[in-house]
Amino acid sequence: MLTLGIDPGTASLGYGFVRERADSSLETVTYGVIRTNADTAMPERLKQIHDELAALIERYRPDRAAVEELFFARNVTTAITVAQARGVVLLALQNAGLPIAEYKPNAVKLSISGYGGADKAQMQEMVRILLALEKRPRPDDAADALAVAITDLHSYRLTLAQHL
Amino acid sequence: MLTLGIDPGTASLGYGFVRERADSSLETVTYGVIRTNADTAMPERLKQIHDELAALIERYRPDRAAVEELFFARNVTTAITVAQARGVVLLALQNAGLPIAEYKPNAVKLSISGYGGADKAQMQEMVRILLALEKRPRPDDAADALAVAITDLHSYRLTLAQHL
Repeated sequence: MLTLGIDPGTASLGYGFVRERADSSLETVTYGVIRTNADTAMPERLKQIHDELAALIERYRPDRAAVEELFFARNVTTAITVAQARGVVLLALQNAGLPIAEYKPNAVKLSISGYGGADKAQMQEMVRILLALEKRPRPDDAADALAVAITDLHSYRLTLAQHL
Repeated sequence: MLTLGIDPGTASLGYGFVRERADSSLETVTYGVIRTNADTAMPERLKQIHDELAALIERYRPDRAAVEELFFARNVTTAITVAQARGVVLLALQNAGLPIAEYKPNAVKLSISGYGGADKAQMQEMVRILLALEKRPRPDDAADALAVAITDLHSYRLTLAQHL
């Protein structure tokens, strides 16, 4: 089972491909960020995000995808910008025919660290341990995307277990 | 000059194609709404919006496109949902290679009615008059999209005039 986790954004969109092996251990296939330039017009940036994500899906062929839900208490302008990017992400995933799961930030924290109040450093350290990486994954957005992918694999396993 | 005006939304996205003739009069080519079902998963709804919009562009071949900017003071959840749809709209326009203009709601009101505080009925009546339609265009989202298209043609004419 190979899951693509995504942390949506416009300047930097994090992605992480994580595989669950037959023995339930996790393997990091690849991760990184799609960057776009703030000087470029937004429609062109959205096209870059869409096209680079579609190319990654074509190359790594995940079985599922998971996207972090947006949570913004304060800055509506930022929320709108990130949501536009999230729209083209969902479109690319839908076009690829992938099952798509969405997780709230707190659900990701709970799944990775065991409680909803974990800070960024704690989260990254847990991702490092769960994926048996030598160093914490960088940059932050890629680490967040890996956390989303792990959450999806945990959630999928739970769903299977409920039907045993 | 044929402009495609768009009022973004997920349940109902308004579109309007307006042509400026050589004598500067305006002609309504077509208008309407793209509707998606609230019971359908969001990625599938975003794909419907993208694909139907791409088909309209392919059919009517506009020279330009204009999209209303989002303005939300209160409901961030609604803002995020509409912004996701706006993201796939911008992608479809970019993929079609169209010049894309964005207008704030107040700019549209100002351009159509002469002042920024016009209410919905006044706006629709002005759109009806400017496009020489027998009745006010329906539904509301389509009328809004026509107003955006007219604003774009006004703006384009002003830009040309500045370079005379």
